[in-house]
Amino acid sequence: MESKIPYKIYLTENEIPTQWYNVRADMKNKPAPLISPADGHALSIEEMNPIFCEELNKQELDDTTAWFDIPEPVQQFYRMYRPSPLVRAYFLEKALDTPAKIYYKFEGNNTSGSHKLNSSIAQAYYAKAQGLKGVTTETGAGQWGTALSMACAYFGLDCRVFMVKVSYEQKPFRREVMRTYGAHVIPSPSMTTEIGKKILADHPNTTGSLGCAISEAVEAAVTNPDYRYVLGSVLNQVLLHQSIIGLEAQKAMQKYDIRPDIIIGCAGGGSNLGGFAAPFIGEILRGEANYRIIGVEPASCPSFTRGKFAYDFCDTGMICPLAKMYTLGSQFIPSANHAGGLRYHGMSPILAQLYHDGYFEACAVEQSSVFEAATQFARTEGILPAPESSHAIRVAIDEALKCKETGEAKTIAFNLTGTGYFDLVAYQQFNDKTMVDVIPSDEAIADSLQHLPKIGNN
Amino acid sequence: MESKIPYKIYLTENEIPTQWYNVRADMKNKPAPLISPADGHALSIEEMNPIFCEELNKQELDDTTAWFDIPEPVQQFYRMYRPSPLVRAYFLEKALDTPAKIYYKFEGNNTSGSHKLNSSIAQAYYAKAQGLKGVTTETGAGQWGTALSMACAYFGLDCRVFMVKVSYEQKPFRREVMRTYGAHVIPSPSMTTEIGKKILADHPNTTGSLGCAISEAVEAAVTNPDYRYVLGSVLNQVLLHQSIIGLEAQKAMQKYDIRPDIIIGCAGGGSNLGGFAAPFIGEILRGEANYRIIGVEPASCPSFTRGKFAYDFCDTGMICPLAKMYTLGSQFIPSANHAGGLRYHGMSPILAQLYHDGYFEACAVEQSSVFEAATQFARTEGILPAPESSHAIRVAIDEALKCKETGEAKTIAFNLTGTGYFDLVAYQQFNDKTMVDVIPSDEAIADSLQHLPKIGNN
Repeated sequence: MESKIPYKIYLTENEIPTQWYNVRADMKNKPAPLISPADGHALSIEEMNPIFCEELNKQELDDTTAWFDIPEPVQQFYRMYRPSPLVRAYFLEKALDTPAKIYYKFEGNNTSGSHKLNSSIAQAYYAKAQGLKGVTTETGAGQWGTALSMACAYFGLDCRVFMVKVSYEQKPFRREVMRTYGAHVIPSPSMTTEIGKKILADHPNTTGSLGCAISEAVEAAVTNPDYRYVLGSVLNQVLLHQSIIGLEAQKAMQKYDIRPDIIIGCAGGGSNLGGFAAPFIGEILRGEANYRIIGVEPASCPSFTRGKFAYDFCDTGMICPLAKMYTLGSQFIPSANHAGGLRYHGMSPILAQLYHDGYFEACAVEQSSVFEAATQFARTEGILPAPESSHAIRVAIDEALKCKETGEAKTIAFNLTGTGYFDLVAYQQFNDKTMVDVIPSDEAIADSLQHLPKIGNN
Repeated sequence: MESKIPYKIYLTENEIPTQWYNVRADMKNKPAPLISPADGHALSIEEMNPIFCEELNKQELDDTTAWFDIPEPVQQFYRMYRPSPLVRAYFLEKALDTPAKIYYKFEGNNTSGSHKLNSSIAQAYYAKAQGLKGVTTETGAGQWGTALSMACAYFGLDCRVFMVKVSYEQKPFRREVMRTYGAHVIPSPSMTTEIGKKILADHPNTTGSLGCAISEAVEAAVTNPDYRYVLGSVLNQVLLHQSIIGLEAQKAMQKYDIRPDIIIGCAGGGSNLGGFAAPFIGEILRGEANYRIIGVEPASCPSFTRGKFAYDFCDTGMICPLAKMYTLGSQFIPSANHAGGLRYHGMSPILAQLYHDGYFEACAVEQSSVFEAATQFARTEGILPAPESSHAIRVAIDEALKCKETGEAKTIAFNLTGTGYFDLVAYQQFNDKTMVDVIPSDEAIADSLQHLPKIGNN
């Protein structure tokens, strides 16, 4: 285990990047724009401004500026929990008895428990700078809502989180973290919006859905000029902010002359994979280097590997603009037995275009093998990983075991997006051996894809 | 907020201390020994060896050796999650508008969520080195059990945790963390021990108690020659291992020429206060420096401030040896309304002697004010603190506010022992404004102290 490379590589605070990287600037085929579900025209910034913050809309639409300055107050907040370490997984390597060198960027060492804070603090900053009173969002399990609550507490913004009612009631812990940070957490559907009232009138006993929560959050934003709606994944702006992960990793690697052969990230809406891989993909796009990049998704929600590259609604409620992405259809809902997060039906338009153009590969893994990897990782590296992150761990371990067979000493780097402290019901299922793998049938996916909009897909 | 002192001071891995510091070596009045409850004789190592690991017993009894080498495998494990950062609380200072400089040593950035791992890995190492198959222990909420599970997973030891039945059932999350690390978690009382069987026969519907869990864990150890019993606080050996906290803090301070005026730790059984403060108290004992050191305890379990310095049972079951400590009586149980941890009736004999000799002061704080401080800390510094740690935060904030009044720029350092991710029921009580402060009456404490043993106290 002796080596001159430390267990954890920390940049100094002065080395934290001061700019975000916009991979779109280096893409020949730009990601397709958001379009109107009514007539298919590309949305203008004027049309987006009532929903999202102005400066964020500029970032959303800008596919030519490669570098964006990180505002000083955001840089300052980053110093609260960043730089995050790039960890050499010496203990895991030893347990696997592999010649591979494994590194992970650990984004979970903050109270939100994940990388989501990297974007929420940026979005809260721009909302504050615009003079808004608050922001609205939806949350399922509560990871994004927690990150947004922390950011809003810092800038003194009101944070209104519409939380799917069944999660609000059955998963009270993240709810309480959000409340501790001063957020208003509203079980959805609620009587605070027209759409919520309507749904409750029609279905008084509903336990809510993410689609409904999105609809309420958007309504709450557009009907109040002092509020805007914010989102934690999928959007171009989110991938821009998350590039801090990859930029820091790159810098840490340069310090010790580490050259990764394989770069791995889990893929739900794309925020962590896009953020971690972006600077490396940029090198590929500019012809400066080559890496094997792997996006790992759950077999129960396989948008890259079994979805269609097409325009689709971003929300199950079919009220938001259309985005061109790999999608399973906006009505696709992963099996209730799916415990491992990453349940979004679509995928970031940036990543979708890059995948379509062959810049990285994707694979789907089953959840019992994901939790097996998670447990092995926890026992060797001492960190209880989030189920989402454990998708990347699974493939990192598999690649390291291949190296053991071939004798190759490849360098593998993956993004450990977060911790699993709020996912222990899923761990219990695994510990109790009651976890089942559910893979959607071809028919189910084909059926769901029948509902793709005509607009944009002719 | 500009300063040359970074937000987080990290030592390099090579700077992690390689020896633990034994404060007893510098004490003129040594802590009183553990004695037999039968006849009051000081326990010999031969008498202790059937219960605890041999090498740990040597550490327990040695009050003259100042420095103990940290075994190489323990040093290696420390590099998994150490060094822990010494954080300058710039954000909190700004929010308080105080001239004080506030630092905290953050011990919560590991999956056990607290400093407990510092001792559990040492104890597991010595158990393994002795050729044992496993260790037994008890746990209430599960913090110590989690830390021990992680350590045992690393060394391939069997870990048997007797968990108070009501916690096992109502607080399943830490239980699942322990199981994920491969521990056997047994709801106590259980049918696996004679004492458990007897209690179940007498009280079939009991929900268990910590006293009963201790009795079962001790029985499970002494009846199996391949097992020993281990403990996460109170003992001298635990304070020895925890000195790593204070030693690292001291080194980080020396790097930036920081001289603390006030050093604060919360006090339950004494493991974190003893570990954090030990090297600083050592300086005082050797006449090299002076610091104001404050132990903070809950008003609902005030052993320092309202207890008696006397020999008492370490366990409510009255089967363990007697220790001389500040105690509220072994039958003292904090109110069920007490949410903030630190519920042990006694206090480390080392700290008890030092406190008795005037080397530090103690104060007691009420839990609603503790959670108020916790919330302010979370919102400004971004870390959701454990209720235990928040006792120290409360007093750190109070001292900083006094500085604001007087204009003094004192340097305050406290130990942030852990995170509150598994304490959200208590946070919810605070958020819902249903938290109440309960302070034991003088009568209740006097009544409990009536049960002090005669042995050792004549």
